[in-house]
Amino acid sequence: MKKFAVVLAGSGVFDGAEIHEATFTLYSIMKYGGTYQCFAPDIPQYHVINHISGEEMDESRNVLIESARIARGNIKDLKEFIADDYDAIIFPGGFGAAKNLSTVAFDGPEASVNPEVERAVKEMLEKGKPIGALCIAPAFIAKIIGDVTVTIGQDKETIEAIEKMGALHEETNHGEVIIDEDKLVFTTPCYMLDATILDIAEGADNIVKEMIERL
Amino acid sequence: MKKFAVVLAGSGVFDGAEIHEATFTLYSIMKYGGTYQCFAPDIPQYHVINHISGEEMDESRNVLIESARIARGNIKDLKEFIADDYDAIIFPGGFGAAKNLSTVAFDGPEASVNPEVERAVKEMLEKGKPIGALCIAPAFIAKIIGDVTVTIGQDKETIEAIEKMGALHEETNHGEVIIDEDKLVFTTPCYMLDATILDIAEGADNIVKEMIERL
Repeated sequence: MKKFAVVLAGSGVFDGAEIHEATFTLYSIMKYGGTYQCFAPDIPQYHVINHISGEEMDESRNVLIESARIARGNIKDLKEFIADDYDAIIFPGGFGAAKNLSTVAFDGPEASVNPEVERAVKEMLEKGKPIGALCIAPAFIAKIIGDVTVTIGQDKETIEAIEKMGALHEETNHGEVIIDEDKLVFTTPCYMLDATILDIAEGADNIVKEMIERL
Repeated sequence: MKKFAVVLAGSGVFDGAEIHEATFTLYSIMKYGGTYQCFAPDIPQYHVINHISGEEMDESRNVLIESARIARGNIKDLKEFIADDYDAIIFPGGFGAAKNLSTVAFDGPEASVNPEVERAVKEMLEKGKPIGALCIAPAFIAKIIGDVTVTIGQDKETIEAIEKMGALHEETNHGEVIIDEDKLVFTTPCYMLDATILDIAEGADNIVKEMIERL
């Protein structure tokens, strides 16, 4: 049984992990015979967004505690992640990836990345283990690795930022996966395109399938 | 295109809608060629639970606003639900169904049901339109309708409460759907059993498929 670490960024597209992307990632891992353990950093969310109005709420929430909603309580602090214990790591998207796990949403090519996220990615990279990222999450993978080929779909501004980070970008459509065979980095656009929940299920399925085939 | 109303109870298994059940319900509706509109009542959550520790948090959240996380912002107040506009209605589970949409978690057979939930179910029932409920949600369907056959799986205490409400209960295993052909009420146990995310996908798929076949 291949073990995936799934790193969440909260719970909700506008300030956390995108719920459909995260759910279908967990589902596809089990569907292809793998197991998963969810992780998230134990840090405050950048902010809390009212998902109806889009406005900021006068609240503070914790990324690990909110991510536990998607994981049904079975989640660990990303500090406890040990690369030797997992065969692959994957990051669902949502603005949390660009606001909590990194500052891509605010700083573009000059973004900083949460140190535990950076450590986890670098350790898996050094061990030659597959790294997956959906939606906007490939942007911080580009920031960490630099010389890597990724996709976030077709959004011009994000593509420009990724290229300024030193990475190569390949445009994609619904469900397509870009694989950097050298770095073993797998990326797919999901809700970075104008997608339906069917497209998200397909994208998550395709990326997990490609990753698990190489394990 | 058959239109489903999907009624959410927050976002997170312990105080809201169960995220996997809700996500797979939306997915299966589209997979079988339907469309969906999410709804939730505009009321405070009964409480907010830290999904890691299981303890209550000193916060208050709104059921409609939190449900919008699952719906990616596209959600309406349940007060705006008009039975004529929809072909079917479905309620994913999670403790929110038993704490926010009703008081089943606290009052068992004496539970009260949110008046907008009761109105929506009764209007669909009168029009002979399919009503679906997953996990614990069938308990408040039993409370509203009384003379109806449902399933919540195998939990003895909940079965006893449902029978005291005047309903019939049929025990089920993963993925099974009980159909009351007279009332057009469809129920499936999902996480009321000790289930994996694969079982949830199967249960949501089966119930939506059965509902859509009758439309």
